[in-house]
Amino acid sequence: MKLASLPQGRDGRLIVVSDDLAWYADADHIVPTMQALLDDWDRYFPQIEALSIELAHAAIPRRRFHEREACAPLPRAYQWVDGSAYVNHVELMHKAHGADLPASFWTDPLMYQGGSDGFCGARDPIHIADPAWGGDFEAEIVVVTGDVPQGASPQQALGHIRLVGLINDVSLRNLMPGELAKGYGFVQSKPASHLSPAFVTPAALGAAWQCGRLSGTLMVDLNGQPFGRVEAGEECTFDFGTLIAHLAKTRSIGAGTIIGSGTVSNRDPDGSPGRPVPQGGRGYACIAEQRTVETLATGEAVTPFLKAGDTVRMEMRDAKGKSIFGAIDQTVVLG
Amino acid sequence: MKLASLPQGRDGRLIVVSDDLAWYADADHIVPTMQALLDDWDRYFPQIEALSIELAHAAIPRRRFHEREACAPLPRAYQWVDGSAYVNHVELMHKAHGADLPASFWTDPLMYQGGSDGFCGARDPIHIADPAWGGDFEAEIVVVTGDVPQGASPQQALGHIRLVGLINDVSLRNLMPGELAKGYGFVQSKPASHLSPAFVTPAALGAAWQCGRLSGTLMVDLNGQPFGRVEAGEECTFDFGTLIAHLAKTRSIGAGTIIGSGTVSNRDPDGSPGRPVPQGGRGYACIAEQRTVETLATGEAVTPFLKAGDTVRMEMRDAKGKSIFGAIDQTVVLG
Repeated sequence: MKLASLPQGRDGRLIVVSDDLAWYADADHIVPTMQALLDDWDRYFPQIEALSIELAHAAIPRRRFHEREACAPLPRAYQWVDGSAYVNHVELMHKAHGADLPASFWTDPLMYQGGSDGFCGARDPIHIADPAWGGDFEAEIVVVTGDVPQGASPQQALGHIRLVGLINDVSLRNLMPGELAKGYGFVQSKPASHLSPAFVTPAALGAAWQCGRLSGTLMVDLNGQPFGRVEAGEECTFDFGTLIAHLAKTRSIGAGTIIGSGTVSNRDPDGSPGRPVPQGGRGYACIAEQRTVETLATGEAVTPFLKAGDTVRMEMRDAKGKSIFGAIDQTVVLG
Repeated sequence: MKLASLPQGRDGRLIVVSDDLAWYADADHIVPTMQALLDDWDRYFPQIEALSIELAHAAIPRRRFHEREACAPLPRAYQWVDGSAYVNHVELMHKAHGADLPASFWTDPLMYQGGSDGFCGARDPIHIADPAWGGDFEAEIVVVTGDVPQGASPQQALGHIRLVGLINDVSLRNLMPGELAKGYGFVQSKPASHLSPAFVTPAALGAAWQCGRLSGTLMVDLNGQPFGRVEAGEECTFDFGTLIAHLAKTRSIGAGTIIGSGTVSNRDPDGSPGRPVPQGGRGYACIAEQRTVETLATGEAVTPFLKAGDTVRMEMRDAKGKSIFGAIDQTVVLG
């Protein structure tokens, strides 16, 4: 089942979207918003699922779904916590600052609390007030949870995953070293993130969803050119069950919590940091990685951070080549 | 005007409370929840204020307000960001780890994103699953904002403060050094926080609210004994306008964002870290400060962190000795 939200008020209104993302049916007569559905999942899910089946059979009135008309599935959420499941990314970011990766980072997930009071839609522009901040994208997988009790095991946590989607976790690279040095996480260096047009139930992902990991190629384009063709199912050190259990170690988690995988990142088959796509590699899901690889290779980063007018696109397709979550497709606007 | 929430669903139902916290009137026929009021403040505030005036004149049906029956004013919020306005606290915490305070901490606010998906009520027990985690309380002032545009100045930010309250920002001290070393802020070391029974408009605070700082004695009792009698209006390096503007530097802030002052903390008049209340000092608003002062003085911390059955109370009173926000008054429960 695929769900999305159309703009209405602060929280949008819930719609059910067909598997091919071509059609939708209103769902807000059953439950008004995606958050309200997540709040009372067991009560509403059967009716929403029945609606989804009727939509698939064209047995109810349906309308054309246009990704550009959707707002973020959750235009705001009660929690957004981003992990670092792809430790290759973290290792590259450490190298960028001349630091070695602590060995514990391979066993103890790195996670930070992000701002969840406003998520942008997939076609909303990336607003960056000051180009000197070093704007960057980060393509990631996210899951949305129901209520998770304190102390849940990774295995138990998997059972509380309601939905899966994509995020562009916009980052301001030049503000990050100062905030990391403080130790208190990211406050200014992470502006609003952008969510994929649709969120999808794990069941609808089929074999691509296994044990809390999503397999498939996350396609990232910068200015219409392939920038990343990273494999989300590979080198994913921490599955989502482990990330959720990490967060739930000391407290329960409320329904509608969004958990991110961190930037999807692969090494090269020879064990070195990945090569750019034009050089036959899988490329990168953020600019900072490419800059780090450039610096390691030549002593100088040449790929600039985001500039006004740049376009960024993120998408995953299923085995039949159809878009799973719809595309995040954006233009950078300064100011 | 004073507002509170009574338990109902996930978000409570809004009530207006009399200045003396003795009476309340239902407000959910005007707007159902405190979040909904904050979402549409300009629309609903006149009606809620009129209700408050009628309550003050006993011109409408009213009921006894019992602090113990209230849930958190915002049982969940879209954002919780805690600052460190009282740099004396931060300096003591650095000393506890044998580190010097960076000079920039006096001019650049330290802030972290906290979990906002669940706030406990003022009389709810403090649940700590493992006593080895080193449970502690932190008594702080909070404000709740409306929408704040990106780039708002400290002065502009002050105009977006809707409500003021207290928080017990529960901390797990023994988990903090590991998380601080990661640089990504607090994920496991900050379980759910507890909010005061009532939140109060800045206007209702009168002269105690000046330029984004609240004056008055924050009374903290541990096991029925005075533990802190700290002055919230003194040594508050960053006013709330500055904290909000810091958060809003790179992104807008959504209505209902809760911003904390950090642990209220005063030095001794001679410039040394504060002395305990029984020794004639103002004491402390968290156990960790007292332990640090003990360690600096004798080489050993003797005050234990929270144990099962401990009671913690936090309250501020106005010039007439009346409770402003009601009391946070809790018992520690392990498990």
